[in-house]
Amino acid sequence: MITIRDVAREAGVSVATVSRVLNNSAAVTEETRETVLKTVARLGYRPNANAQALATQVSDTIGVVVMDVSDPFFGALVKAVDTVAQRLQKHVLINNSYHQADKERHAIEVLIRQRCNALIVHAKALSDQELAGLMQQVPGMVLVNRIVPGFAHRCVCLDNVSGALMAMRMLQQHGHQRIGYLGSVHPIEDNDQRREGWAQALSEQGITPVESWCASGEPDLQGGEAAMVELLGRNLHLTAVFAYNDSMAAGALAALKDNGIAVPQQLSVVGFDDIPISRYTDPQLSTVRYPIVSMAKLATELALKGAAGELDSSARHCFMPTLVRRHSVAIRQNVAAVTNSGESQM
Amino acid sequence: MITIRDVAREAGVSVATVSRVLNNSAAVTEETRETVLKTVARLGYRPNANAQALATQVSDTIGVVVMDVSDPFFGALVKAVDTVAQRLQKHVLINNSYHQADKERHAIEVLIRQRCNALIVHAKALSDQELAGLMQQVPGMVLVNRIVPGFAHRCVCLDNVSGALMAMRMLQQHGHQRIGYLGSVHPIEDNDQRREGWAQALSEQGITPVESWCASGEPDLQGGEAAMVELLGRNLHLTAVFAYNDSMAAGALAALKDNGIAVPQQLSVVGFDDIPISRYTDPQLSTVRYPIVSMAKLATELALKGAAGELDSSARHCFMPTLVRRHSVAIRQNVAAVTNSGESQM
Repeated sequence: MITIRDVAREAGVSVATVSRVLNNSAAVTEETRETVLKTVARLGYRPNANAQALATQVSDTIGVVVMDVSDPFFGALVKAVDTVAQRLQKHVLINNSYHQADKERHAIEVLIRQRCNALIVHAKALSDQELAGLMQQVPGMVLVNRIVPGFAHRCVCLDNVSGALMAMRMLQQHGHQRIGYLGSVHPIEDNDQRREGWAQALSEQGITPVESWCASGEPDLQGGEAAMVELLGRNLHLTAVFAYNDSMAAGALAALKDNGIAVPQQLSVVGFDDIPISRYTDPQLSTVRYPIVSMAKLATELALKGAAGELDSSARHCFMPTLVRRHSVAIRQNVAAVTNSGESQM
Repeated sequence: MITIRDVAREAGVSVATVSRVLNNSAAVTEETRETVLKTVARLGYRPNANAQALATQVSDTIGVVVMDVSDPFFGALVKAVDTVAQRLQKHVLINNSYHQADKERHAIEVLIRQRCNALIVHAKALSDQELAGLMQQVPGMVLVNRIVPGFAHRCVCLDNVSGALMAMRMLQQHGHQRIGYLGSVHPIEDNDQRREGWAQALSEQGITPVESWCASGEPDLQGGEAAMVELLGRNLHLTAVFAYNDSMAAGALAALKDNGIAVPQQLSVVGFDDIPISRYTDPQLSTVRYPIVSMAKLATELALKGAAGELDSSARHCFMPTLVRRHSVAIRQNVAAVTNSGESQM
């Protein structure tokens, strides 16, 4: 690795002079400046970002913590942050946290130690208290999809319960009463809130939400497939299912097809998130839109403002989901109660 | 931000003493060590990763450059690197490059300036010469999916032409002759190589590859849908299509369904990559498996070995794709030449 000392020696000047040239100081003659810059180019020397960060105590890197970048939802979040970062000529440092407290803590700590002055964090396992402590120390830290009391102006969140109620009411308006829930095994509040919306909508119609109408899996295609198979095996005469997210819903569609159950004729399915895949399933998935791109962009802007000490502490950033009606929901037929063998019964 | 000076003042010792405690130097009394560590904990001081990196000229961060983390193929690559990194308690710094030369150059430069000592790079737009120059300077830089002459032992690649030939021969063994190609608009050699395999397989059967049998789009669901619609509009009596990747193939399936063309009965479709979605399309996609997880893990290990100066310069790392037979390919029927209206003709 070429160092600033190599440049100084080759150019026949002091290290301090090279530093002054690279920092555009005026106290250098034009001739010296040219000699140094030519030497820098010839040797391929790169100013050390760590030295620059150390001198200024900030870095030009925006940190992002997500559950897993290979999950389409978090991929969209990271891409939205990256879009804002590129526009502002900042760089993005990403850490996965897998919804585990120790990994979330570690991922945030690493970014703070890298002196990222702006941090966008999706943390679900850490306590409010621990997050509050970190946010107190790092003014440019913003949370996505969570509210920590006392820091609401630095939290960008979504009303999950309302989203679940929208999905459920759409199904109920189509005559469905026995509606299952495909949940995530990750112990995160999103799952609790969506399930709460599911239970509330059922109760409003005088139906007691039953534990056996819920099955859980990893929040991905395979997890949705497994959870749907589990529900079918229980032979519950459900006519619809509401899934924690679109990946699970898409996995459920595969399980239903394998079992000869037509969607939406025999069973209606609704997802959550509106990731790209939901327009390419068969049938196209009716779902609840999570405006993650807008939310991630806002979070990035808030984080940069926070780092600059320019945040409005009275502002609130709670987004509302919207319903996306495609082709996986139909009116419940009188003889549409479906068993696991795919036959129709009353 | 709490600094080392704050800790020293609070603990009533010098900055140098705090530094010695944090670096586990023996030249500190047990009493002083305890006082300092308690103060560090109480104030929430974090050693500055930039200062540590500056002192050692390496960082514990592995850099990764990919086209776009929100693309499932690259998401899988990044996750594989992250898996190795976590095992070794290293961190992963990710940059997107969008297959554009200036962004690829910039993404690599940023990681080098962050003093990442291990770099895993997916670069398609930069010249061999420029990449060779960078690899010369950074011994821990490894390329995925590309060979730069002189640095083959630091390149992990796939035989794309053979993969395309596998896909095409499977179609030909099912009686298909008029086979279209859904290509990527990104000007990258993968697309050239897969198209070359397509053309070679046709030529081997005495069929002249025709430009009009190819249509291009972005390498995603929407791009595949648009390219398939384009091909259908040309009314070419194709009985099969080979797609640049699984996302495009899945998009093509949606276009075919919209046009009432049954897959595989009327038209066979083969993808490339074997990303998770390919098991959840309808029908499940027959495809060519790109062992990206194994390749990314190997690349990470090579990068770390390169940084440590332990690479075997005679080793080669060219992977071979394999065929995954699912349900999107069928025997060509005598009357199966499909027009854009979906009717069957000779």
